[in-house]
Amino acid sequence: MFTKRLRNKLIQERLVTAQEAASWIQDGMTLGLSGFTQAGDAKAVPRALVERVKETGEKLKVNVYTGASLGSEVDGIMAEAGIINRRLPFQAEKRMRSKINNADITYVDQHLSHTAEMVRAGTIGAIDVAIVEAVAITEDGSIIPTTSVGNSSIFVEYAKEVIVELNMAQPLSLEGVHDVYDAGPQIERQPIPLTSVEQRIGTPAIQVPLEKIKGVVVTEEKDTSSSIVQPDEETAIMAGHLIEFLRGEVKAGRLPNTLAPLQSGIGSVANAVFHGFLASEFTDLEVYSEVLQDAVFDLLDAGKIRFASGCSIILSQEKGERVFSNFESYKDRLVLRPQEISNHPEIIRRLGLIAINTALEVDIYGNVNSTHVMGTHMMNGIGGSGDFARNARLGIFVTKSIAKNGNISSVVPFISHVDHTEHDVDVIVTEQGIADLRGLSPRERARAIIDNCAHPDYRPQLRAYFEEACTRGGQTPHVMEKAFSWHIRYQQEGTMLENIATEKKAAHV
Amino acid sequence: MFTKRLRNKLIQERLVTAQEAASWIQDGMTLGLSGFTQAGDAKAVPRALVERVKETGEKLKVNVYTGASLGSEVDGIMAEAGIINRRLPFQAEKRMRSKINNADITYVDQHLSHTAEMVRAGTIGAIDVAIVEAVAITEDGSIIPTTSVGNSSIFVEYAKEVIVELNMAQPLSLEGVHDVYDAGPQIERQPIPLTSVEQRIGTPAIQVPLEKIKGVVVTEEKDTSSSIVQPDEETAIMAGHLIEFLRGEVKAGRLPNTLAPLQSGIGSVANAVFHGFLASEFTDLEVYSEVLQDAVFDLLDAGKIRFASGCSIILSQEKGERVFSNFESYKDRLVLRPQEISNHPEIIRRLGLIAINTALEVDIYGNVNSTHVMGTHMMNGIGGSGDFARNARLGIFVTKSIAKNGNISSVVPFISHVDHTEHDVDVIVTEQGIADLRGLSPRERARAIIDNCAHPDYRPQLRAYFEEACTRGGQTPHVMEKAFSWHIRYQQEGTMLENIATEKKAAHV
Repeated sequence: MFTKRLRNKLIQERLVTAQEAASWIQDGMTLGLSGFTQAGDAKAVPRALVERVKETGEKLKVNVYTGASLGSEVDGIMAEAGIINRRLPFQAEKRMRSKINNADITYVDQHLSHTAEMVRAGTIGAIDVAIVEAVAITEDGSIIPTTSVGNSSIFVEYAKEVIVELNMAQPLSLEGVHDVYDAGPQIERQPIPLTSVEQRIGTPAIQVPLEKIKGVVVTEEKDTSSSIVQPDEETAIMAGHLIEFLRGEVKAGRLPNTLAPLQSGIGSVANAVFHGFLASEFTDLEVYSEVLQDAVFDLLDAGKIRFASGCSIILSQEKGERVFSNFESYKDRLVLRPQEISNHPEIIRRLGLIAINTALEVDIYGNVNSTHVMGTHMMNGIGGSGDFARNARLGIFVTKSIAKNGNISSVVPFISHVDHTEHDVDVIVTEQGIADLRGLSPRERARAIIDNCAHPDYRPQLRAYFEEACTRGGQTPHVMEKAFSWHIRYQQEGTMLENIATEKKAAHV
Repeated sequence: MFTKRLRNKLIQERLVTAQEAASWIQDGMTLGLSGFTQAGDAKAVPRALVERVKETGEKLKVNVYTGASLGSEVDGIMAEAGIINRRLPFQAEKRMRSKINNADITYVDQHLSHTAEMVRAGTIGAIDVAIVEAVAITEDGSIIPTTSVGNSSIFVEYAKEVIVELNMAQPLSLEGVHDVYDAGPQIERQPIPLTSVEQRIGTPAIQVPLEKIKGVVVTEEKDTSSSIVQPDEETAIMAGHLIEFLRGEVKAGRLPNTLAPLQSGIGSVANAVFHGFLASEFTDLEVYSEVLQDAVFDLLDAGKIRFASGCSIILSQEKGERVFSNFESYKDRLVLRPQEISNHPEIIRRLGLIAINTALEVDIYGNVNSTHVMGTHMMNGIGGSGDFARNARLGIFVTKSIAKNGNISSVVPFISHVDHTEHDVDVIVTEQGIADLRGLSPRERARAIIDNCAHPDYRPQLRAYFEEACTRGGQTPHVMEKAFSWHIRYQQEGTMLENIATEKKAAHV
């Protein structure tokens, strides 16, 4: 029954149940799990481990290293069961977020291209067991990943033992879409030969010594679908601003008609902005990104994108059914790479990417917070945004200008947590407009951001802050006593708006 | 007389005085000047321009783009004369700093590897005139730089006209030390073939069409010597901590005996820490840095460094006299590259550098401020520290734990300006000790930094802040109302120390 997918005779004898595989995992171990943005995550063995712990009541804690976020029913239930000690480099799950912010889980938020280097260098400990999802195991025992490559190849290389989840629900037509390349140790490393988005530089499967595969668990379970929110009026306007800007770059001779390889962060806003290319005049577009969401496939369907390179595919349920039932038709226009390569500074700089990522908040000088709500509480993590923004040709950040019914301004005097500094932020887009910050000094940036990106309700406040700050002088003027006053006001009064807060106070008195 | 240095017959006829060359410069122009950390800067023509403006009283403003900082008698007098409109990507001069902080000069503080890309992409305007210092012009009209390469090759390539300052005081023995490589436009760019610090991938001179060289000015003036402060007891202790840490990395098998190529930022502290290798057991060291300061040559003299790659050489007067009078003996162990290559993320990541840079202040979570005093006033600029820290194998930051007689703590609850985020800061070193932050969560980082790096006088205050912050929860706990209270206290009371400030207040009342 499984010979079509499990082609190595020796390994055919290592079929085990998820429960048996989970029984190999011991307290204190470090697990390297496949999975990137819910795609291609190890599912059955982590779940069996949670069940085991629930049944036995044993005290078990493991470190969980992954590509990026796992599906809710993996990250969520592990968090809930309290079995995670250290988690890296990214997550995006409600229950896990809560545990992280309560310091019940030690969370290390990393640039997604950095984890592989740390595994190689041994600075985050050894990987005891790699658990990776596969569509097939080849004749020579190599592992063909499913909908993501993530950190699977580096985990398999450095783990002491490997467990494979052979997922029958993942289409076998995924075979051939992967390009597994190992940059190798930094001493005597060679240039990564990739010079175009479609180039293949590695192998279609993860090579592994036969003896390292301890067991194979057969599963049949689809990835968690993305719960992406469809484009709305505001994100459509944002896409319009961005496309108008890119049109201007082409007109000025700074970009060719086909632009440059595009990267887009995870999430609804970035997806919606990408979606905006559908109605644009641009064709023959290239994508060099980490995650390929619905919009990429819509653009492939429309013939707008020529080729897309990514690290994972995560789709809404409807789009996923259509894409995976007909995956052969996409395969010559797609490649999935390890996240070390999809997010590698060498390639990002060489190809000159246009990087589009989502900001949680920006400040008047163009610093960006991607991770922390009100400066303290983790939302998801920095993900690949830092890999891309620092090294891209254009580091673009998108955000709606206000949140929480207008009580939060996404443009603030001083962001409460800095993930991207002014040096890495070229362009900011909100539904209000676009601020092109390239070559501008901080004071020039402030005027551009306030005038073009801030919500009109907040512009007077922002101008007042900036003007007061300027009276104190400096390259980056601030009134340090008031720098976080907006966040404090929101926490105390429920709004960043000055007048409303004052009125509320007055009413209260 | 000049034929030994001015070898092209056609160009021999273009000798002009500095005054004549300066007369070509018009209001509104953008100048691309050679010079990196005071080394190899254009000297005579900028000075003649200042004199012209002083004499005529004309209103002239130019944009000044450079490699990095120029000598004081270039950057300083241009600032004083008020002829600079926009200045990028780095400066380190007192008078210029003052004008920048008064917003009289528009200063754009950039990653040093980024400027060349922006010139190529046309996002910071066109270069009207490149003015570059040379030790010689070859038979085919190519320009051999002096003590720095900086951005000279990209300025020469993109400028409409080129003026060469042929500096007879710079030793002709510099010829052959340079390796000029052009990464080329990002579309269809090839991998940069550099795989070892000593490898030469370019040409020994800057190639330029003959007709582009408008004039040659003969000068005879040494670079401004560095005013580097010699190692003191505290920097020696810091060097000791760092070397002990590296020893541990070797012992743990994470680094070979010869370590990995070293980078060190500009300045006395970084130089002193580098100096610490002299007394260490390490040999066959390699340097892949931007600026080569005294310590590098001391280590070359002692046979500790096998090969050093840089972008500029800046020495104290004494060391400079000894090195340049005997430069031939260093030449097979040195190479100078364009700053785009010395600071290139592709190479930094490939070679796996150990990057050592100076922090102005760090916060308890390991974010680093390299540029802004009290959050607002520019000191110098980020320089190459961001290029290196983000992509290095080890991003190390060094700072003394206190400043201003102990009234400033270099470790604060929340830094007043963020140049390097927690994601890029692996290790912090002060004279108190070392904090190895790799793989740690923010709360773990806070404990490591407070316990190991903060000055004992400030540890109780830092612990009190952190403990109060933890009661509020979050991945990165903060008390936003108090986040900048230390800076505000210093500004109001002259000290960050709580008790002293309280006592002062009490005495005042």
